[in-house]
Amino acid sequence: MNIGKNQATWIWYPDDYEIWLHRKVSVLRQYKGYICPPSWRLDDAYTSVKFRKTFHLDAPETLTLSVQGEFVLLMDGNMTPIPYERKPITSVVIPAGMHELTINVYNEHYVPAIYASGESYITDDTWEVTALDGKWVNAASSSQFDEIHHPPKEFPFSYETFAPVQVEDIEGGTLLDFGRESFGYLNFTDVTGKGTIRLTYGESREEAMAGELSETFDDLPVEGDAKAIAVIKTPVTRAFRYVYVKSDEGITYSRALHEYEFLPMEAQGSFRSSDDTLNRIWDVSVHTIRLTMREFLYDGIKRDRWVWSGDANIGLMINNYVFFEQDLAKRTLIALRGKDPVCTHINTIMDFTFYWFLSLRDYYVYTGDLAFIETNYRKMLSLMEFCLNRRNEEGMMEGRPEDWVFIDWAPMDLRGEVSAEQLLFCRSLDTMALFAEKLGDTDNLERFGELAAGLRRKIFDVFWDGKEGALLHGRHQGEVNRSVLKYPNIFATKFDYLDAEQRESVKTKVLLNDDVQKIKTPFMRLFELEALCLLGEPEHVLSEIRSYWGGMLELGATSFWEEYDPTLPADEQYDMYGDKYRKSLCHAWGAAPNLLLGKYVLGVRPLEPGYTQYIVEPRLCDLEWIEGKVPTSNGDIEVFGNSSTIRVRTNEAGIGTLRIHAHSRPRTDDGELMLADDGIYELCLSEPNRLYVVHMDVETGDA
Amino acid sequence: MNIGKNQATWIWYPDDYEIWLHRKVSVLRQYKGYICPPSWRLDDAYTSVKFRKTFHLDAPETLTLSVQGEFVLLMDGNMTPIPYERKPITSVVIPAGMHELTINVYNEHYVPAIYASGESYITDDTWEVTALDGKWVNAASSSQFDEIHHPPKEFPFSYETFAPVQVEDIEGGTLLDFGRESFGYLNFTDVTGKGTIRLTYGESREEAMAGELSETFDDLPVEGDAKAIAVIKTPVTRAFRYVYVKSDEGITYSRALHEYEFLPMEAQGSFRSSDDTLNRIWDVSVHTIRLTMREFLYDGIKRDRWVWSGDANIGLMINNYVFFEQDLAKRTLIALRGKDPVCTHINTIMDFTFYWFLSLRDYYVYTGDLAFIETNYRKMLSLMEFCLNRRNEEGMMEGRPEDWVFIDWAPMDLRGEVSAEQLLFCRSLDTMALFAEKLGDTDNLERFGELAAGLRRKIFDVFWDGKEGALLHGRHQGEVNRSVLKYPNIFATKFDYLDAEQRESVKTKVLLNDDVQKIKTPFMRLFELEALCLLGEPEHVLSEIRSYWGGMLELGATSFWEEYDPTLPADEQYDMYGDKYRKSLCHAWGAAPNLLLGKYVLGVRPLEPGYTQYIVEPRLCDLEWIEGKVPTSNGDIEVFGNSSTIRVRTNEAGIGTLRIHAHSRPRTDDGELMLADDGIYELCLSEPNRLYVVHMDVETGDA
Repeated sequence: MNIGKNQATWIWYPDDYEIWLHRKVSVLRQYKGYICPPSWRLDDAYTSVKFRKTFHLDAPETLTLSVQGEFVLLMDGNMTPIPYERKPITSVVIPAGMHELTINVYNEHYVPAIYASGESYITDDTWEVTALDGKWVNAASSSQFDEIHHPPKEFPFSYETFAPVQVEDIEGGTLLDFGRESFGYLNFTDVTGKGTIRLTYGESREEAMAGELSETFDDLPVEGDAKAIAVIKTPVTRAFRYVYVKSDEGITYSRALHEYEFLPMEAQGSFRSSDDTLNRIWDVSVHTIRLTMREFLYDGIKRDRWVWSGDANIGLMINNYVFFEQDLAKRTLIALRGKDPVCTHINTIMDFTFYWFLSLRDYYVYTGDLAFIETNYRKMLSLMEFCLNRRNEEGMMEGRPEDWVFIDWAPMDLRGEVSAEQLLFCRSLDTMALFAEKLGDTDNLERFGELAAGLRRKIFDVFWDGKEGALLHGRHQGEVNRSVLKYPNIFATKFDYLDAEQRESVKTKVLLNDDVQKIKTPFMRLFELEALCLLGEPEHVLSEIRSYWGGMLELGATSFWEEYDPTLPADEQYDMYGDKYRKSLCHAWGAAPNLLLGKYVLGVRPLEPGYTQYIVEPRLCDLEWIEGKVPTSNGDIEVFGNSSTIRVRTNEAGIGTLRIHAHSRPRTDDGELMLADDGIYELCLSEPNRLYVVHMDVETGDA
Repeated sequence: MNIGKNQATWIWYPDDYEIWLHRKVSVLRQYKGYICPPSWRLDDAYTSVKFRKTFHLDAPETLTLSVQGEFVLLMDGNMTPIPYERKPITSVVIPAGMHELTINVYNEHYVPAIYASGESYITDDTWEVTALDGKWVNAASSSQFDEIHHPPKEFPFSYETFAPVQVEDIEGGTLLDFGRESFGYLNFTDVTGKGTIRLTYGESREEAMAGELSETFDDLPVEGDAKAIAVIKTPVTRAFRYVYVKSDEGITYSRALHEYEFLPMEAQGSFRSSDDTLNRIWDVSVHTIRLTMREFLYDGIKRDRWVWSGDANIGLMINNYVFFEQDLAKRTLIALRGKDPVCTHINTIMDFTFYWFLSLRDYYVYTGDLAFIETNYRKMLSLMEFCLNRRNEEGMMEGRPEDWVFIDWAPMDLRGEVSAEQLLFCRSLDTMALFAEKLGDTDNLERFGELAAGLRRKIFDVFWDGKEGALLHGRHQGEVNRSVLKYPNIFATKFDYLDAEQRESVKTKVLLNDDVQKIKTPFMRLFELEALCLLGEPEHVLSEIRSYWGGMLELGATSFWEEYDPTLPADEQYDMYGDKYRKSLCHAWGAAPNLLLGKYVLGVRPLEPGYTQYIVEPRLCDLEWIEGKVPTSNGDIEVFGNSSTIRVRTNEAGIGTLRIHAHSRPRTDDGELMLADDGIYELCLSEPNRLYVVHMDVETGDA
């Protein structure tokens, strides 16, 4: 299986590279100059692990070897080590015949890892590894680390240097404007003098000029003592568009340049339309999600810089319509789960545990990568067991004192059985049943299937209110809280738990009802707008995108925000959590339009895991034309539409169904489209890599 | 509770200092110059923890603060950090009133720890700490770290420098003899020249001179290039009596000194008698156990340098008769247990899991320290649960493929249900019942009590053989293995599981039966000899001590060995595991005579936890006189005995019972002793700190 495969990779104990990296980056958050560690347990890589592989060689072979850590080589169960020369890349001769090579590695600073490459045998996932816990498992690797000179230590970022687009002398200092939101370092060249350069960062101009009120700052010591120093670089990465620079007297420098640090990746997805505002919203969303995609999918780049499961759920979905960068998705999902024993919910938040299950489902549906699911299945089971052990006597999940029940930044009663939580829990159980089925775990398929069905019945028995035509908010100490909020109704729609009548009443009585409490975070706005798309209201969604995200653009946003309330005055827009500039202005969930436009306007979405079957359901709405690409693991799906023509270029595998909303029957050169049961015209896109063209009656167009 | 207590201590997350330290020291073992990590999982300290304490202050107070790690100070749930000056020891003013101070600490290299000291509030075990796992627990500390300048980082060893007692020029090098087994570094003074000094260490002269066959060596690089260098020190600690030094041409030095590294402690226990050999055996045992007591109780100091649970069980028992150093006992028991989840047996050995429970029982019985038991109770429960989940359908424990079933270095069938393992398991269940009772955990008292009783019945049903008058060896695939080995019979005696008739037959048909396979390790010899003492054969035991340990002395031992077979020729005595010099010549279990002489010749042992009640049962055997001290938490108990007089000085608390084996009734100045049911004369030692003198008929003396 590994014979003839030429590319060796660094290998390590499964999940340990991601868990180690997550621990490292989780403590980069600062507040007022002090560390701000996360409020959840940080796990770490095992320091001592043992790799093994049984070789059969026809002739002796030299294995070239590099190890991250101290190590000892043993063969065939002998206690006497095989000698090797102590240098970064060493080699060892394996004699002919059948041999078991074991390599014990110890490293307390980096993840223990090995790279070996011989004529017929190399390090890859067929090697086994143990953390000395009585179990051998397959080693893990990443395509990021397939070079013997680059062990899993420094994250392989790319760098680009930018000069400010504008430099302004103000209040005794200099305000640098880099034109749009960015991330990385600053380099000062030819620095002379002695003292300190104080840098105050701002995602907004106001923040950069706010002095002590700004969230992040750096003091650069200059000890040049009148001698020119080549370059002084800021000590840590920061998020900013503006930097206000104030130096001690006598300090000079020739240039202040920004060293942009980023994960190298090309946008695969695209969207263009006849509406320039929408196009700008797409572009700024791409910029937003790109900046938050680094080692992991971060919530935002200025403040937390943390991996939050709810944020990741949305961010990774958005990624599926822009970069389709699945290595980052895997790193993020592994890091979030951490190690056993499970002691708290993920990020300590009950709903964020459920989003983790949902993210794995999304990952699977978009990629079809069952191998990753299988690798993580044991940890899914133990996390689900943790949840099941916390049910109340009604079989529902309530927050315990140590749990954070979040749902959204909005006023609501979070005590007792919150219906939105039960819906997320139910969908998590559904997800476990799906994975159990796919992995042939019939006992758990039955168990989780029954648990999910039982909980779903109970949710509707307890919370569905026929009069309100909606799911009610919750139940506390046996008493139902009759508030109607959007959350449970959004989730029930998204998970397809409603019948036709319920869907209609949820749409009109809840989601389109102005009297129901409005949602202010792009986080829940995404789910809300998705639900409206699923309820057949893409025009409404398009108009919401224009006004909500367009509203941020009008306020000068170059990336989209953590929270936006159009009703607030401009000078309160950056306030959050009681601080003047705490709001993150580049937040992954702010990029929701990428998902909405790709999934519901271009209308491309998988029906079966990995796009083996998929839907293309373009919705022109009030636009003259739309055009774009959606990436899949088998190439892009391209869509163009205007009132007279729909063109779709299929990807390299999978069978699509083109669904067209039109008043009269559209046709291809081969004939007319079929009318499906739900009144939508359908065309089977059975051929890969083919351009399908559909003509429509110009008079009627999009319905 | 902490008001007025003047001594602040460094505090940390419970067990984390010990677990961190254990991880560090566990990788110091080397073999042929390569690392040799342990074959079990190494756990580590949490990198990110949070301390908290609620203060009430009448007036503002300055808290002097030092933190091992990066940290942020927060008060009363506010998000804004309290500013502090960044220096190793800093301070912060706490305002008057009621305040909750929290300190988040992150450290990836050392255990996160804090030290704070104010006028009324200091860091101590009343502070709480969380690993961000949803639980707050009381912080832990150690009297070793009660100084703000000495954080829990460098272990506080003591050092002493020794010159060799003999220097011999031989084979082009120099053989240094330090007179007896020792541990630490070598320092070379006034080194000149360039090249390498090769040091070959030997616990024996033969090993030091064995070149490549020696177990440990160091190459000291000398880069002095003809310039004198003050001192060159060896890079790591080593165990040795002899060091063979061979330098490259042109290298000179004035002196080679040994820097002895040790845990500072005084021997509290003592033993002297009319037999000089026995006295030397006592002294060499003390030297042996002293050298193995360092950060933890190690098996031996040359090779493994590991914390093995079986070895620790014996070593800690011996410690109770010599140093009574209980901080080391606690560190050792914590390190052995490590963190959850439990994935394998302790040290991967089934019996070693059980010895851990037994060690905790011994610790409790000797110290009465229920607080330590309570602190560890949760981890005892989870380890016992691990065991219970591994029982077979008969309720017995069998080795699984990943388990090591050890018992002893001796030929025996270890498949299936080994009776000795079931006895250790049963005693572990007994122990859990005892702790459950003491801690008021009535559910578990009942549960473990029933499990223990049931298992004990089953053991005797299955393995007791009336004809053999012994417990048989085991059962594999339903078939009883009828071998009679000493192990199960020793354990049943030691745990008091036998009735009078069974005791008698075990003594004569097994333990004193020359046809039964002999025991060759001091490990099991200790248990064997203890059993013989319990069966009333101290004379036999004394004679075994003289011949077995005396045999090692005759071979030149300056510390006692891992294994000793008197029948082997002298030039094979250092062989082990197939290597010429692998045998450890300073092994904790080698010090067994300290325990045997203190517990069964001086005859001092606790009846109730912490010596609140105790026995003094001196056995003169064939000695003219014996004299010694046994330490307790309430001072020493002193014993003198010859054929006419027994003198006992009681300790400062507790009630003793003096038991005298004599042919006629002994008397004190106050009257005659009572004859107990078992034919032993008894005197109640009810007064603390008093010298009791008993006179005996010179003619009859010791029975």
